[in-house]
Amino acid sequence: MQLSIIKIGGNIIDDEARLATFLDAFAAVPGKKILVHGGGKLATKVAEGLGIRQQLVDGRRITDAETLRVVTMVYAGTINKNIVAQLQARGCAAIGLTGADGNAILSHRRVHPSIDYGFVGDVDQVNTPLLTSLLLQDKTIVFAPITHDGKGQLLNTNADTIAQELARALSTGFSVSLVYSFEKSGVLLNADDESTVIGRINPAEYEDLKARKVIFAGMIPKLDNAFAALRSGVGRVIIGRAEELSLLLAGQSGTTILP
Amino acid sequence: MQLSIIKIGGNIIDDEARLATFLDAFAAVPGKKILVHGGGKLATKVAEGLGIRQQLVDGRRITDAETLRVVTMVYAGTINKNIVAQLQARGCAAIGLTGADGNAILSHRRVHPSIDYGFVGDVDQVNTPLLTSLLLQDKTIVFAPITHDGKGQLLNTNADTIAQELARALSTGFSVSLVYSFEKSGVLLNADDESTVIGRINPAEYEDLKARKVIFAGMIPKLDNAFAALRSGVGRVIIGRAEELSLLLAGQSGTTILP
Repeated sequence: MQLSIIKIGGNIIDDEARLATFLDAFAAVPGKKILVHGGGKLATKVAEGLGIRQQLVDGRRITDAETLRVVTMVYAGTINKNIVAQLQARGCAAIGLTGADGNAILSHRRVHPSIDYGFVGDVDQVNTPLLTSLLLQDKTIVFAPITHDGKGQLLNTNADTIAQELARALSTGFSVSLVYSFEKSGVLLNADDESTVIGRINPAEYEDLKARKVIFAGMIPKLDNAFAALRSGVGRVIIGRAEELSLLLAGQSGTTILP
Repeated sequence: MQLSIIKIGGNIIDDEARLATFLDAFAAVPGKKILVHGGGKLATKVAEGLGIRQQLVDGRRITDAETLRVVTMVYAGTINKNIVAQLQARGCAAIGLTGADGNAILSHRRVHPSIDYGFVGDVDQVNTPLLTSLLLQDKTIVFAPITHDGKGQLLNTNADTIAQELARALSTGFSVSLVYSFEKSGVLLNADDESTVIGRINPAEYEDLKARKVIFAGMIPKLDNAFAALRSGVGRVIIGRAEELSLLLAGQSGTTILP
């Protein structure tokens, strides 16, 4: 059975009109599907409003207790529930989850030799029976990038990673297409030129582009996730523009990641 | 089959230690169960922090668009997900929902001849098949007091009402005990004296106490909901102290509302 797992990036979430266009396209995707959303700028805005200072280390947000409270509010509250309500309005039987709900995704607090990332989770286990059961009941799952450690602690978790871990776990029962959709047309040779999208890329080509520093830094974690997903049994991975979702799934747009 | 539907009040949610004690007791309740939580002071605190002014009319919060954003954050995000994670830690297979999730509770924006309550929802329909399916899969449902109108609009909805509507709808398939748990020992003859709890109350006695203005105003919506629930087929309704949950369910504490 086919399953589409679609990650949507923060820049789309921040833009009401683009989000609406994306949700039209997402609601129209046939068959079983899961949407994983990131955060966008709203969390930063709310944190600033509440006078909570954001710490960044190597471009990653350090999630202290106050920041965790903000991202839980914004991701699991505002963004997740608005997306669910808007999908319901489009006839899509959406149900919003965090990793804590039904123990959907269990994680542990990140262990790092030198940086304390705070309340950031690395995924241990996906509750495949729960998610399969919901999908078989024709529910569309909308995941907020929050997980838990099973001991009562919520953890901020990278949405790209969640999409990849879901794809990997659900590939045992479904033929999974994993789509990373965002504001660009795909993997670009020149970050400033949308016409330089690479239609297909395999691991050898990726290593070559990385060595020549042709791929911009922001794409590297996404591509690493994509190749890891393919290695772990995911059927196919596509990266491309959120508004072109149906073309991406039809293989007519974006970058297809090859094993 | 027995089903316990337990509403927990805001004052318990605001107090970390009391909430933990309550969640210990809730996790220990045998059989099928649903928790409905209210808001507490956190929403007011966050709204103040973000510089959003709260309007109250007749003691009710007017939910403008900004306030709706705050209550969605706080109720569906912070409070719901923390309760779910803490129940998971207690071995309770909790899943958090708003009315938008799986179209669990459909409502419409309140129509009132003179007051515009803003984005406040009055319940139209409970998705009994979805909730029954989750309960039969041994999931414990944790409801945030947010619903939707099916057209993409989230709506702020009274938690007592949600508990009552759930109890009513699920009474077709379950033998429902509805518990309104809060910071007091039950319905009190004297609001300042916890020893004056009324063990049992029927509609005639309630009318009499109301006429004599013996029942304090805050209890009246709760009791109106309780009697309405009994009239609509709910097995029993109990009002009492959150920390005494097992005694309440055993009929050994609190106020039992009689038909």
